[in-house]
Amino acid sequence: MNQFDNDTRMVALEQGRMAGHVHAVWSIGSNPNGGYLLSLAVAALREAASAHRDPLSVTAHYLRPALAGQACTVNTTMVRSGRSLSTLRGTLTQDGAARIEVLAALGDLAEQAPPVLTVAAPQIPAPEACVPRSGAQQGVMLPLLEMLDIRLDPSTGPLGTCASGGGSARIAGWIRFRDGRAPDALACILFADAFPPAVFSVLGPVGWVPTIELTVHLRARPAPGWILGQFVTVDMQDGRLIEDGALWDSQGTLVSQSRQLALLLDPARRPPASAARTAQ
Amino acid sequence: MNQFDNDTRMVALEQGRMAGHVHAVWSIGSNPNGGYLLSLAVAALREAASAHRDPLSVTAHYLRPALAGQACTVNTTMVRSGRSLSTLRGTLTQDGAARIEVLAALGDLAEQAPPVLTVAAPQIPAPEACVPRSGAQQGVMLPLLEMLDIRLDPSTGPLGTCASGGGSARIAGWIRFRDGRAPDALACILFADAFPPAVFSVLGPVGWVPTIELTVHLRARPAPGWILGQFVTVDMQDGRLIEDGALWDSQGTLVSQSRQLALLLDPARRPPASAARTAQ
Repeated sequence: MNQFDNDTRMVALEQGRMAGHVHAVWSIGSNPNGGYLLSLAVAALREAASAHRDPLSVTAHYLRPALAGQACTVNTTMVRSGRSLSTLRGTLTQDGAARIEVLAALGDLAEQAPPVLTVAAPQIPAPEACVPRSGAQQGVMLPLLEMLDIRLDPSTGPLGTCASGGGSARIAGWIRFRDGRAPDALACILFADAFPPAVFSVLGPVGWVPTIELTVHLRARPAPGWILGQFVTVDMQDGRLIEDGALWDSQGTLVSQSRQLALLLDPARRPPASAARTAQ
Repeated sequence: MNQFDNDTRMVALEQGRMAGHVHAVWSIGSNPNGGYLLSLAVAALREAASAHRDPLSVTAHYLRPALAGQACTVNTTMVRSGRSLSTLRGTLTQDGAARIEVLAALGDLAEQAPPVLTVAAPQIPAPEACVPRSGAQQGVMLPLLEMLDIRLDPSTGPLGTCASGGGSARIAGWIRFRDGRAPDALACILFADAFPPAVFSVLGPVGWVPTIELTVHLRARPAPGWILGQFVTVDMQDGRLIEDGALWDSQGTLVSQSRQLALLLDPARRPPASAARTAQ
């Protein structure tokens, strides 16, 4: 079994309750990555909604930092079970406190017609010509990078270069599992929150950008190979920003769209890593 | 009291439970509008989260069509109560069945600094030079239009004109309450789902486009006057589409962003109005 499948495995306890483990390797600094936490919760919801496996729409609210290397439980509630959609709630809890709250609609993307309207992948250099994401760029340890191979378009890299112009921040690049596991729906949820925040391309690595809320829409099951990701912020005010993301598979198919509301902490008010609500 | 405040008024029953009424005037055909239903639910969540009034992030999943002209209850649960954010769940129920399920973070937008990054409002003709939205365009009664004055940019109107080019559908226009009520946070939630679906600009009025899930981010409290809305779809496949929306106030401030996942029903498989999950 590969690492991601092992590290998102959920075991049923009683009706509507599952047990898992928040593995420390999927962390940014000492905080479990928000996309990893959400993929754990969605893995539990998929078990609860046995008829539907594809997360068509998943929203997570990040309540408190999670605890790396510790057990978790996910309480699931079926909100509505329909023919084409299962709608569920889930709460991921550690040490007696809720860490993330999730609301999701699962469906089936097995049979797909070609898109009527779609967005083409941006043209960026091949993975070999991109810059590996590294913790040194951000001044933080990134255990996540032992699991994920992330290559950033050098024209949008998180080194203070501004790829914008008209008041926007953009980061683009490639992502895949280091152990060769193929991307799938659950991986897209992880990948939607594994790149550096787009605002780093304008502001430099300004520290923690904790997610308040993240919504991921899976649009198609990805083909094997590299995933291309692009993340854009055009709206930042009053210490909060919106980041829009999109992922394309190796066939050029748009496989997911995502959007998050995040906090840009004032450096003077920035809490220590252990106090951040979640890590991107 | 103006109509919208009256028609979103919630009365506390017992702890965590509120009563209201789904007024028939806020309907599309015979179905209560999805934005109106969400503003009812958020009105209840605001009462439950007394410390925080502004819906920073609100996600609704539409489970079943609501019942116009009938009572409703909203069960609210405080997920986390913090200094700067209150996170809550809510379920709007009628006649014993859940109609929409909501997850929201409320905060305070009273003190705002100027935006660091933002999106300028599109240039469209003044309201007097735009085309009033009408039910005749869609072949359906729109009671909602007795409450809301909606004027569509004629270059993007819902009459089959294609404002696109590169594979996108766009609708833009103006919106305000007919009774002169000023826009506010709750109104922005209604306005985020009160325009015709953007795909009508490409496909013509193809019928019901029921919302599966809608997320609204309030970015600033709106100034009095007309609100300018723009709604864009660039991603439609397999009978599902994503529509991105933005609202600007009369000062040109970006006051909300929204995104919804909706079903584009095959005309041959289109259910009667009473069976649609919700109406846009």
